[in-house]
This record gives sequence, structure tokens and C-alpha cells, in this order.
Amino acid sequence: MPYLDYNATTPTDRRVIESMLPVFDEKFGNPSSANHETGLAALELVRDARSQVSKIVGMRPADVIFTSGATEANNMVFNGYSISKESPRFLVAATEHKSVLEPCLFLSRHGADVQIIPVLPDGTLDLDKLNEKLIQGADILSVMAANSETGVIHPTKEIVQRAHAHNVLVHCDATQAIGRIPFDAGELEIDFMTFSSHKIYGPKGCGALIATREARKEIQAILHGGGQENNMRSGTLNVPGIVGFGKACEIAMNKKESDNTLQQELRDCFEEKIIQNVPDVTINGKDAKRLPNTSNITIRGALADAIIANAPEIEISTGSACSSAAIEPSHVLTAMGLNTGEANESIRVSIGRQTTREDIDVAVNAIAKAVQYVRGKEAEIAGSMNQC
Amino acid sequence: MPYLDYNATTPTDRRVIESMLPVFDEKFGNPSSANHETGLAALELVRDARSQVSKIVGMRPADVIFTSGATEANNMVFNGYSISKESPRFLVAATEHKSVLEPCLFLSRHGADVQIIPVLPDGTLDLDKLNEKLIQGADILSVMAANSETGVIHPTKEIVQRAHAHNVLVHCDATQAIGRIPFDAGELEIDFMTFSSHKIYGPKGCGALIATREARKEIQAILHGGGQENNMRSGTLNVPGIVGFGKACEIAMNKKESDNTLQQELRDCFEEKIIQNVPDVTINGKDAKRLPNTSNITIRGALADAIIANAPEIEISTGSACSSAAIEPSHVLTAMGLNTGEANESIRVSIGRQTTREDIDVAVNAIAKAVQYVRGKEAEIAGSMNQC
Repeated sequence: MPYLDYNATTPTDRRVIESMLPVFDEKFGNPSSANHETGLAALELVRDARSQVSKIVGMRPADVIFTSGATEANNMVFNGYSISKESPRFLVAATEHKSVLEPCLFLSRHGADVQIIPVLPDGTLDLDKLNEKLIQGADILSVMAANSETGVIHPTKEIVQRAHAHNVLVHCDATQAIGRIPFDAGELEIDFMTFSSHKIYGPKGCGALIATREARKEIQAILHGGGQENNMRSGTLNVPGIVGFGKACEIAMNKKESDNTLQQELRDCFEEKIIQNVPDVTINGKDAKRLPNTSNITIRGALADAIIANAPEIEISTGSACSSAAIEPSHVLTAMGLNTGEANESIRVSIGRQTTREDIDVAVNAIAKAVQYVRGKEAEIAGSMNQC
Repeated sequence: MPYLDYNATTPTDRRVIESMLPVFDEKFGNPSSANHETGLAALELVRDARSQVSKIVGMRPADVIFTSGATEANNMVFNGYSISKESPRFLVAATEHKSVLEPCLFLSRHGADVQIIPVLPDGTLDLDKLNEKLIQGADILSVMAANSETGVIHPTKEIVQRAHAHNVLVHCDATQAIGRIPFDAGELEIDFMTFSSHKIYGPKGCGALIATREARKEIQAILHGGGQENNMRSGTLNVPGIVGFGKACEIAMNKKESDNTLQQELRDCFEEKIIQNVPDVTINGKDAKRLPNTSNITIRGALADAIIANAPEIEISTGSACSSAAIEPSHVLTAMGLNTGEANESIRVSIGRQTTREDIDVAVNAIAKAVQYVRGKEAEIAGSMNQC
């Protein structure tokens, strides 16, 4: 069955699994056990992975702080900054992931001033509104590289330049961007960036906060204990996960692997066919630069949940995995100007390395059939209501 | 080369690795993707593992909150309690792990009242001192089940009864106890307990906070985002790690596997032979109940680092892995009344499932030889200093 939910998670690459295998039992040491060979061998594995992870984002190995994933890394930025600062001021894009919005919401109840920057109808940050807020002053601005639900890419370079002109630090959640579009945090002069292993065909349970030396001084650890990661993140290092994460970065850096032309072709083909076969469809974020693999479409007159339930031939989603089970409409789509009804009529198709042309055909047919059925049902219900 | 540092970390059991393998690529779903089969299959795997993990500690599956390890879980108790409480009062045993002591130290700089409860010379909690502190009032008492450096086992049942008589919640870090001694948190009526997968032949990067329904109401999440784990711990679940953790618990519950008679025999044999072959040796915590696998010995006149450097045939440690690279003397041993010199002359040998009688012989010979050499050297240095 075609899996078209690669933005939620990806299967771990076979080469990644192979790189991890010996680390479970042969090279199983604790890197903090620096007085014997087994510990030192583990430390060396972590060192190599740190180098691989730093390379894909154009930073130095010393800038990498390994975490359990992007959610922890995002929390480290805001919670970690708030520890030493009485009333921190955060600017946050309206379409950020919940692992950015929720820590900020939490901190706003504990003294932080959190300002939401709106996005334009195409999903990109409203730069005029950004300017207004920057002039008022802030500590950290958080704008993701690319949106998980729509694939919309923000103009990160311009955003960083504007923020730095006002001495505001920039955090960029690049979880969906890494491995899909070129992203060089060093060149972009980003202060804090975060991403996750399991979105780039690496294992779950591993991610990183990557921060310049200056930026690291601005935050404190949120997990305390053995003092690992230069006292920035205590806890025994997840060595197999880190090794797999490193390998996943290495693979994603390979030109052949990072060539997303095919994914873009498949995505464009999907959108073209959907528009041909299903009336009254809008592609969200169409006018912006988007990730090559992501398509978010609103199908008027057909609830997304009903479409998904009636298209059992494919695996797609209504938005981010975290809120897939939630009832509320996507905050990303409503921020782009969709009303609640439209947001609830929107589905996300996200393509990955294993997706084939056949998968796209199956998806288009399944969705078209489901929409026809659901629209018919909904018309029927509306009709029977009119009769009353 | 004999690895005798099982308290630092253990190799992942082959059966555990096999249980995880299909979860990396075949059953790779995100359990939060509840609207398709791949997501639901992952959710089911997590459900099964939650049941396995809950069983080994006699609690309910709903009491299990999966974390990245014991360090994060320990932080969740103290940091999570401090969020909603103005001036929390924590009682903490002097010999707790750093992942308990350090969060408390951190919180004491932010309004928490932290009182350290001393231990007796045998390493067990000073119950008279505990009573004094309980009478003064407290919110949470934290006493580990068994110490990582010495293996000393605290009288948990009595401690819990005394704390509850004063309406004080009990947190028990059982990281070293699980799989080594019977430990039923439900029967012991513990409120919060924490442990880690990689100490019981499971993968690194996974652990749990286990808390009763009432106790869970007393703490708030420290990582915010997608709302996983009933809003107690956001972040995509580390499904392969969780599956492996569950399998490791299942294996450790098996009678044959949890029979630590052999490990105790080997440990006792080691201590007997060391005393026979090396003069002036003390076994730390000898008069207390101890874990069957752990031996911590002070060898007067020979620095631990020098012994380890001169015994390259074996892999042992000076104490906890977290502080192995640190210069300061063990806080556990000094709390038991050893002076700095004695603490720095102490080594830890910890035995595991793969340890053989031959390993013990190799270890005794290597240590005896190293001690002789080091003592000679130190005598030589002392002699040459006298000549000056």
C-alpha cells in the first residue's frame, strides 16, 4: 500500500541500520567511560557522527548537541534561554511546529513575552509584520526553514539578516528541510537550528540542537546530571542512534540521494492529475517556494477525515502527525487564511525516496473515488436535511 | 578483554536487537499517525512494550511515560514538580546519582529548598536523620533503590512507609536495581520511579518515568509540543528503542535470566581472592545488602587511576560513568565517610550476564599485579621525596 506520509516519518535506510548494528552489542560502550577501550571506542563513534551531522548543515562538530529529537532541541532553545533571563521576548511565526509554539505558550504563562508573526496567504512569513516586531525589540526569532504541512519555504536568508540588524538571535527548525533542499546554517548565519534523524531516513529517538559558540552561551541546559555534551545535555549518549543519525546525514549529503528532482516530478504530477480529476481543489502554498515532496490540497465539499477513511488504498494524513488524532483544524492552514471548514477539507500527501509513479496513480484514483463518494454522501445528507 | 563495567552500560541482548530490527524499516510508522495502518501498527508496538515495561515493576501500563533515559526521567520529577509549586521542598539522599543531585542543585538556585539526607558508613540511608527531616516537612523524597558505585541497597519499603506517614511523595531511581534484584514499585507503593533500558541489556536512548495516577497529577511536562504520552512528554516516540526496552524487560523478568546467583558467586569469589592477594583492601558497603554484581573496593596506597592504567587486561572503572573522566573524588564514597585519598584509591568492578570465572581470575591477577607495581612506584616516589 503506497505510504505517502514521509513528512510524518521515514523508514530507516538499510545502510543506516547496518551502521548501527555493531554498536548495539560489539561496540556497545558508554562514551563517558573514558578509562577503557570499550568506552573510548564509543566516544570515537560519537565523534565521527558529530562530524557527519555538522557537515550537512555547514557548521562545526563542536556546535552539535545531540538530543532525543527535534522536539527536545526546540524546547532547549526557549526553555534554556528563559532560565537566565527574567522576561524573555520571543517572536514566533504563526505556522511553526507545535514543538516551538507549545514551549513558547508554556513560557508565556511564566513571564515570557511571545509575539506571533503572521504569514501571508502563500504561507511565507509576513516580512512587514516581522519588521514592526523587530523594531519593538526581541531576544529570539523562530522561523522554520520549511513547513511540515504545506512544504512552504520561508526566505530564511532575508529573515536572518533582518533579525540580526536588530540584534535578535534566530532559531530555525529545519526538520523538514534537511535532506530535501540545500540548507547551510553556517552560510545563513543562523544562531540556533534543530532537526531530527527520523525525517531523513535515520532512526527515531535522535536529533540535534546546533548552535554557534556565541549562541550556546545564551542558553542553559534543561536536563541536568552527568554533564554530557559539554554540560549542555546530560544523559548517557544514545550511541547507536547517533551513529545512525550520522550515517543518515552522510547519505543525504550524497548528491545522488539529495537529488529530489524525481520527487518533485512525482509531486507535480500528483497535483496536475488531482486538479484534472477532482473539481474544486486548491493547492495550499502554491505561489510560494515549496519542498519538492509535499502537497497540501483543499478539496471543497469533502471532509479530510472522510476522504482518508474512504481511500484505504493509500496512507496520507490531514497534517502533522502530532495533531493527526486531534479534532482542531490545522493552525498552519488557518494562519494562511483558510477558514475552519476549508482547513478540515485539506489533506497532505508527502513523497519520499521509495515513492513510484504507480503510487501516484493509485493515490490520485483513490482520492478521486473517495471524494466523489464523500461529496455524494454529503450532498445526500444536505438533501435529506433540506427535506425536513 | 574482560569487560567488568556493566553498571556503566550493558551490551544489547541479541534477542532485543532482533525485536527492534523490523521496527526500523518494515514497521517504521509514527504512532501519532493514527489514521493509517503504518501509524497504527507502530502504536500497537508501543502498547505492547508499555505493558512489558509496566510488568517488571508491578505497575499499570498507563503509569509508564517513555523518555530518552533515566536522566530525563529524573529531571521530569524535580523540574516537573517545580513548575507549579512556588518553593518546593526536596529531600535527597547524599549518594543519589548526579541526574538526581544536579537537577536539585539547579532548582535550589531557583527557589527550591533541597535537604541532603546523609548515609551511614555502610552506605544505607540514615533513617534517624530522615525522620528529623520528614518532621520538618517536605514534598518529595528521593532515594535510589541501589547505588551504582557500591551496589548498596536502601531499605526502600521502610523509607516509603516513613515518607508517606508524613505525606511526602517518594521518588526512587531504580536504574541499577531493575533486573538485578526483585523490585515491585506497586507493592512498595512508590509514587515516582525511573529506570533506563541500556542498563538491562536494552538499547541506549530509552527509559521511563513510572508514576501513579495521583503522582502524575503533581508534575507538569518539561518538554512541550505534539502532546505525546498523554501530554506528559512531547516528541515522536522512539519506537524501535521502546520495543527493545520492552523486550529487555521481558527477558529480565524471565526467572532464568533474573537468577543472579552466578553473578553473586563470581562477585563474592572476586572479593575473596582480592583480599587474599592484595593487602590492605576494604570492601565498601560490605555490611549492607548489596546488588549481586557490584564490588567497590578501596586499595590503600594505590591511586585508582594508576591501577586502571596498569591493568590494561581488564575494563573497570573508578565509579559512575558520568564522572569517570572527572577529577573530583566520588561523592558516594565520601558520603560514606571515606576521605578524599581513600575515595581516589577506590575501584568498581561490576559483573554482568557474560562474565565468566576466567574473567574473575584475569581481573584479580591484573589488579594484584597493578597494585604491586603502583605501590612500588608510589613508595619509590615517596622515598625519593624523603631524600630531598
